[in-house]
Parts: sequence; structure tokens; C-alpha cells
Amino acid sequence: MPASAFSLDRLRIVLVGTSHPGNIGGVARAMKNMGLSDLALVAPRCEVHCSESISRASGADEILAKAQVHDTLDAALGDTTLAVGASARSRTLPWPMLTPRQVGDSLSTEMAHDAARVALVFGREDTGLTNAELQRCHRHVHIPTNPEFSSLNLAAAVQVLAYECRQAWLAAPGTENVHEDDAPFGVEWDSPLADHADLERFFEHLERTLVAIEFHDPDNPRQLMARLRRLYLRVRPDRMEINILRGILTAMEKRARGH
Amino acid sequence: MPASAFSLDRLRIVLVGTSHPGNIGGVARAMKNMGLSDLALVAPRCEVHCSESISRASGADEILAKAQVHDTLDAALGDTTLAVGASARSRTLPWPMLTPRQVGDSLSTEMAHDAARVALVFGREDTGLTNAELQRCHRHVHIPTNPEFSSLNLAAAVQVLAYECRQAWLAAPGTENVHEDDAPFGVEWDSPLADHADLERFFEHLERTLVAIEFHDPDNPRQLMARLRRLYLRVRPDRMEINILRGILTAMEKRARGH
Repeated sequence: MPASAFSLDRLRIVLVGTSHPGNIGGVARAMKNMGLSDLALVAPRCEVHCSESISRASGADEILAKAQVHDTLDAALGDTTLAVGASARSRTLPWPMLTPRQVGDSLSTEMAHDAARVALVFGREDTGLTNAELQRCHRHVHIPTNPEFSSLNLAAAVQVLAYECRQAWLAAPGTENVHEDDAPFGVEWDSPLADHADLERFFEHLERTLVAIEFHDPDNPRQLMARLRRLYLRVRPDRMEINILRGILTAMEKRARGH
Repeated sequence: MPASAFSLDRLRIVLVGTSHPGNIGGVARAMKNMGLSDLALVAPRCEVHCSESISRASGADEILAKAQVHDTLDAALGDTTLAVGASARSRTLPWPMLTPRQVGDSLSTEMAHDAARVALVFGREDTGLTNAELQRCHRHVHIPTNPEFSSLNLAAAVQVLAYECRQAWLAAPGTENVHEDDAPFGVEWDSPLADHADLERFFEHLERTLVAIEFHDPDNPRQLMARLRRLYLRVRPDRMEINILRGILTAMEKRARGH
């Protein structure tokens, strides 16, 4: 893997002036869940290592322990090549604004630089980032929220951005991510799909059985078999499912014959 | 706006066996931030309205106040037409699995039904959803997390899913592009989808009949009913199909009783 490969290790979360230790812990947990590890705190207004932050981190303690504490935002951003600041939608001076998805999408090109280091910057729980702080960021990001209730919890905001970054990382070419086998149902399946011949044998068996139990009258077929075909073809049964269904039909036939 | 337009009001968050009031409050806040309002709690193992939940809800109190509390998951899902259960990746019996983005993407076709009501089901903080609970869901969803630290906070998991649902809602085409009778199958459908209660009655009938024809031994169930549930939930039967299947079961039962 080249040094320039997309790495979540080169993505820093910067929290400015946080006042609740629980939020710092929640951020650490959200970061570790999404595979991020670099946390920087600028002038926190609360304790960073305490029972509340450790409790909310819920096992992501090493992110708290490794967190860098800085006096200024400039210090926290020193070695970064791109800073994206979380912002409410409207500012007096318009600034390039990305959606969380666009932040994720931009990372792949961004990370192609060997020295790339990207910061996502989040403000205070009550007042966010100041204009001066936002104006230290190349881009702003706004999480689309309900306009009538727009203030996200800090850990929730980090969760959404970190999730989009992880999604972009998972989709990036050249990373050694595990991609699901192209299974029709989104997961590796436990039995191969039935083929056309399996299905046609099943439909014959089904029709024969429905006649035997006097549910189906071939002289007055209406749309019965068509509807059942539509149902079972739509679901793309696997071989084990077809075996189970045929087992049920066989048990029914025996009953119908009076065994 | 037609009744069939994509509406976040027809999206229900269902929490099963939650044990921390703070998480319930955090979920309410995440929901309101993303424009969701329908919260159902199944057998909560903690207080729902208390200082801790109200504090974490941080202004989303009316979602807590309106939350429905149920004894069983079936009661919470009764009128829903699609249930998606949050699940860890690997289960003994594979089930159709979506990513959070796919859940969002599927909503706009899903919501084209007048009667569509979608549930996102989340399990206990410690043990998630049981297999029996997951087997009441048509689809599963897995939030891609760091495999070495995969357990998301409950409110964080709801935040990610609610965010994807809001993204899909924001991207949904104008209502003039939504056709009332569009179905999740890409064409105008001829019968409304069966709801959860219809399906559970069918599964009861199916199991009873399989016992009657001596195909199924409840004392040695193996995975029979789980596999049949997976099959029939995967296909999203419409009401007429459920009527046909139950008609077949009734005919079978009569035979089994020797009529």
C-alpha cells in the first residue's frame, strides 16, 4: 500500500472549548467505532480524564489518553493540510460549504497527497465556533438537520461526520477493505440460489399437490399458479429453501393420499 | 401533497429493552434533529420520563412524552409494513442485509405506498436484538464500524440511521414524481402489502399446519421456522398472496384432520 493511501489515521477530530466531559467521552467512542484515533482538544472548559468521560468513552479510553490538548486552534491545526469546520448554515460571510457526504467524498483525492492530514473542527456545545475560528478553516460543513431543532449533540455531530469518512474510506480504491461477496441479499449466503430447473420442478410439485388437496382446479385455474410463481420467483429461493418447501409438499401429498 | 408522499412521520424508531434513560433521551434528541417523531419502546428496563432522559433529550421532550410503550415487539410493529432490525454482521442464519445508506435509499419507493409505515428496530445496549426479534424483521441493517470496536452507543446508532433517512428524504424527488400505487417492486402493484400482524398470523398458521402434517416437530425445531420466516419476510408478500397461502394451509389442515 503506498504511503499516500487513504488512511483514517490521518484524520483528526478537533474539539474547541468543550464544556462537558461526557461529550468528550462520547466523541472518543464515536471515533473509535468509526476507526479514527487522532483527537485534539483546544482549551477545554472541563476535565478531559475523569469518571464521566471515561464512562461515556466505554472502552475508547486510549483515544482520551492520547488526546493532545492545545491552547489555541492554530496549534491544533498546525500540521494539517485541510481543515473543515462544523457550522450552522447561515454566516454573514459565505464560505465554501460541504455536506457531510461531500466531506467524505473529498477525502479520497485529499489523501492522495503523501503529507495530507485533515482536521474536522467542532465548536462549543452552546455557541459553536466563532467567526474567527471558522475563518481558519478551508471549508465548512453543515449537517442537514430539522430547521426547528437544529442543535446536534457534539458526539452525535462527530458520529455523523466520522461515519461519512468511514463510508468514503470503505469505498476508496486501493484500500484493502473487505468487500462483501456479491451476494444477492447483501451478505454472504449459506446456500446457493436455486436454478431454473430446481424452480420448475418445485412449481410442478406445488401444482400437483394443490390439486391433490383440492385447493386448485386446473379446469378453473384463474391466476393461482401465476400468483404463486410471481411470489416464489420474486424471492429468489436458495436450494435449501426449495428443499424445505418440497419437503412440506411431500408431507402434504402423503396426507392427501391418506397415509 | 398526496398521502403517499415520502414523509418522515411514517418512520418509527423502536427501542427494545433499553436500560439507560440517558440513551432514550439521546435517541429522542437525535430523532428530532433529523425530523423524526414516532418513538416506540418495547419493555424498557428503565424509566422513560425522568430527569436523566429529559436532560439528554435537551428539548426533544415531546418525543419522550408521545412515546408509545409496548410489552412486545409484535405490538410495536403491528401496523408497520417494513421492519428493519439493527444487527451485528454475522448470524448463524444469513438474512437480507442493508447498509444504512441502502435503508435510506429504499425509503422513497417504500413510502410511495399510502399505507407504508417503516420501523427501524434497535436492541438492548448490552446484547442487541435476540434472534427471535431479528426474525420478525424483513431486513437487517449493519452500521459499518471498526471491527475491533464495533459496539455503537444506542443514540449514536439511531443518529446514523436517522441521518441517512433524512438525507434520503431531502433527496426525494418532488411529489409530482411519486405515483400513488408505486410498489417496492418497481411497477404499479395490484394488492397492498401485508402488514406485520397479517404476517405473524400467517406464521402461526404455517407452524400449526406443519405440526399437523407432521413435518415440523416443535421439540426438535432446528432452524425450520427461522428459514421459513426469512423466506416469506424477504419476499414482502402482498395481502392477496397471504390470503392464498393461508387458503392452502386451511386446505391442508382439513386433510390432516381427515376431512
